[in-house]
Amino acid sequence: MGKTMKEKIDDIAMAQLFTEARSYPGWQDRDVADELLHTLYDLAKWGPTSMNCQPMRLVFVKSAEAKEKLVTALAAGNIDKVRAAPVTAVIGHDLAFYEHLATQSPHSANADKMFSKNTALAESTAFRNGTLQGAYLLMAARALGLDCGPMSGFNNDKVDELFFPGGRIRSNFIMNLGYGDESKLHARGPRLEFPVAASIQ
Amino acid sequence: MGKTMKEKIDDIAMAQLFTEARSYPGWQDRDVADELLHTLYDLAKWGPTSMNCQPMRLVFVKSAEAKEKLVTALAAGNIDKVRAAPVTAVIGHDLAFYEHLATQSPHSANADKMFSKNTALAESTAFRNGTLQGAYLLMAARALGLDCGPMSGFNNDKVDELFFPGGRIRSNFIMNLGYGDESKLHARGPRLEFPVAASIQ
Repeated sequence: MGKTMKEKIDDIAMAQLFTEARSYPGWQDRDVADELLHTLYDLAKWGPTSMNCQPMRLVFVKSAEAKEKLVTALAAGNIDKVRAAPVTAVIGHDLAFYEHLATQSPHSANADKMFSKNTALAESTAFRNGTLQGAYLLMAARALGLDCGPMSGFNNDKVDELFFPGGRIRSNFIMNLGYGDESKLHARGPRLEFPVAASIQ
Repeated sequence: MGKTMKEKIDDIAMAQLFTEARSYPGWQDRDVADELLHTLYDLAKWGPTSMNCQPMRLVFVKSAEAKEKLVTALAAGNIDKVRAAPVTAVIGHDLAFYEHLATQSPHSANADKMFSKNTALAESTAFRNGTLQGAYLLMAARALGLDCGPMSGFNNDKVDELFFPGGRIRSNFIMNLGYGDESKLHARGPRLEFPVAASIQ
C-alpha cells in the first residue's frame, strides 16, 4: 500500500462536472426532494477545509413562503430565476466556526483561541473556506445530476437579516438547484487561456 | 430538447472526488508533467464565476529553485510537505480582473467601471470567485487522478512579493499536487451533521 495511482474519471462524468456543464437561468417544473438535499450535503461535506473548520452554513429555500421572503432581497434580474427554480440554496459562513474545532479538529486543541482573539483572521478564514465549500456543493450537485445557477446579485445585509438573524452567519452567494431548461441557456462565455492565468516556474 | 435530466455519476468517480478523497501530507516520488498542468487548468477553467470574471491566477511551483523560494514563506509544518510534492500550486486572485470583462463578458459592457470605482467590491468579488476557482482546481485535479494537499499556513505578503510582485495579484491558498503516499495519511476528520450546518425552509 501507499503507492497506488488513481485513473482519470470517465468522459461522461468529466462532461457533466466541467466541460459541458452550464449555469442555468431557466428551470423545468420538477421537484427536488428533501432527501436529495440531504444526500447533496452529505457528499459536499467531504471537501477539505483548513483545520477541518467547515464554516459553510446553508438554507435550502424551497417553500413558496421562504421564496417570497428571499426575492425581496434580490437584484431585479434574479427574481424570476429564483421563483422558477425548485430550490435556492443560500450559502453563508459562520464567523464563530471555531466553536466546533474541539470536536472537528481535536488535534488543533488551542486553535479556537487564535480565531476568537483575531476577528480579521476569523472572517477571512470563514469566507475562504465557506466559499470553497460552496464550490464543493456546486460540484456535488452536478455529480448527482442536478443543474446549478449560482448568483451574486442580491443584498447581503437583507439576506442575513431574513435568513441568518443574529449576526453570527454572513451570506456569501446563492445558488438555484434543479433541472435546467436547456432551451433558455445563453451562449457560453469564453475562458482565459493558460498563459493569461497561469505559469509554471 | 430543453427537458433532459442527467444521471448521477458512477460510484468510482464519486469516491475519487468526494467520499474517499483525502488531503495528502506525504507524496510519492513521481513527476507531474507540464502537459498535465495545462490539462488541469483547461478543465478547471470551465467552473462558473460571477459575470465570468475568472480572477484566479496560478503559479505552478515545480523547479527546485522556485520551491526553495516558496519554502521561505511557509509555516514550519508545511515545509517538508512542499519539498516532497512534485508541484505546489500558488492560488491567487487578480484585483484588476475586471480589465478582462470586455472580452470575457461582453454583454456586461460597463461592469468594469462598477469595480474600478469600488475597491471593496472588487476585492470581495476577486476573493470569492478566485476561491471558487481554487475549489474547481482541486476537484479537477482529483478528476484527473491527481491527489491534492491544500494549505493555508504561509505568509501571504511574502508569497505575494515572491510570486505576484507588483501588488495587483493577491495570494489566497496553496495546494500540493501529485500522487499521495497513503502510508502517511492521518485519520480522517469528522464532518458536521446536516442539522448543524443546514436547514430546509
